[in-house]
Amino acid sequence: MTRFALTVEFDGRPFMGWQRQAHGPSVQQAIETAAKLVTGEDVIVNAAGRTDAGVHGLAMRAHLDIEKSLTPFRLMEALNACVRPHPVAILACEIVPDDWHARFSCIGRRYLYRIVNRRAPLTLEAGRAWRIPAELDADAMHDAAAVLVGLHDFTTFRSAHCQSASPVKTLDRLDVVRSGDRIEIHAAARSFLHHQVRSMVGCLALVGEGKWSADDLEDALEARDRAALGFNAPPDGLYFARAVYPD
Amino acid sequence: MTRFALTVEFDGRPFMGWQRQAHGPSVQQAIETAAKLVTGEDVIVNAAGRTDAGVHGLAMRAHLDIEKSLTPFRLMEALNACVRPHPVAILACEIVPDDWHARFSCIGRRYLYRIVNRRAPLTLEAGRAWRIPAELDADAMHDAAAVLVGLHDFTTFRSAHCQSASPVKTLDRLDVVRSGDRIEIHAAARSFLHHQVRSMVGCLALVGEGKWSADDLEDALEARDRAALGFNAPPDGLYFARAVYPD
Repeated sequence: MTRFALTVEFDGRPFMGWQRQAHGPSVQQAIETAAKLVTGEDVIVNAAGRTDAGVHGLAMRAHLDIEKSLTPFRLMEALNACVRPHPVAILACEIVPDDWHARFSCIGRRYLYRIVNRRAPLTLEAGRAWRIPAELDADAMHDAAAVLVGLHDFTTFRSAHCQSASPVKTLDRLDVVRSGDRIEIHAAARSFLHHQVRSMVGCLALVGEGKWSADDLEDALEARDRAALGFNAPPDGLYFARAVYPD
Repeated sequence: MTRFALTVEFDGRPFMGWQRQAHGPSVQQAIETAAKLVTGEDVIVNAAGRTDAGVHGLAMRAHLDIEKSLTPFRLMEALNACVRPHPVAILACEIVPDDWHARFSCIGRRYLYRIVNRRAPLTLEAGRAWRIPAELDADAMHDAAAVLVGLHDFTTFRSAHCQSASPVKTLDRLDVVRSGDRIEIHAAARSFLHHQVRSMVGCLALVGEGKWSADDLEDALEARDRAALGFNAPPDGLYFARAVYPD
């Protein structure tokens, strides 16, 4: 048995999310089905994180155990050939120690959220960014984001379906950067609650529109109450960007 | 009658090209149909350039004449509402003089060609870039591109269906820039022949793969013969990027 780590890019639009589900297609199922075609083995693919329906992956990390003798390069090529026509691609593949675990070994997760700040509908980026017609003050968003950085009880920014043992997390980074009509929000933490990034982005958008102040954002955080949430941003603009591992 | 200039973004995948055609959908037809819904008038939309099936637009310029009294902002909003669900968006709209012509007043055209240089299939960018698995030497491509800059007879790089009066054109710029596994090719000229950018990019890819030298590219140019063309790049990676007008 050899454990392989995969780096996976995917377009989240056709999927119910990363995780295998009974009622619809998932990225996990697409890769497991491809792995079965390649190896003849019933394979489980474990990932660094789960993503919701419509959320994309730039470099999700995952692992799988295979009995068949294959080089990482051959496995990557065969998975890419067999995963078609799903919009899933294995960007990299390497052999890792048997105790390396895509989820449990992961010490950092990075998300990117993309906003296009314009009136016109999206064409080339439809489903891959959140269009906000009202002019956003990205500097105000960036300044307000600092309220959320650090160790906090993020209950306000947590989905009712969140399975995390605790709502207390440390947010390492939440930066808002504008370039023309593009606004990118970069979030980094050891781990996130379910819907946390989308919930934080939704409230930052309210700040950008001038409907909320940084104090309003702080009040929402301190309320520790989902009812205090301003807005949950759509999945379209969210990308799982990177998983970090020791050494 | 008021003449309006439009700046148009579109995803070229569902279209036979910009220009209205009898046998399939076009960007021109989509906008003209929307304009008819907005104004009740039979409108002709003239553009700075034509694009082939599958070629995208970042900022195509076009004009149309309308009898109905409308501000540019209202026209833009109404066109964007009525052009749905086509992946076409009016990014800007302004009133121009009656003798301003999107095609004939245009003194410069810019194209962008996007290559993703990796083995893995495209997911988020499928249909919107050309994936080349073989490692490309972008510096060699950039150096060879200089062979094509300037005043030349571009017959080799011209489609058999090209309607231009002369194959002699001045290419102002052809730059190849790599950033990670992304390679962008920027082309600028007063005007281009049909398939010229795709033909030049196809040959530059041969240079990048080491199959052609800069001298081979020069020989192809000097042959003034379509049979000397190395390769015509697919439309997926091509974007009409900008139209330039006096003052």
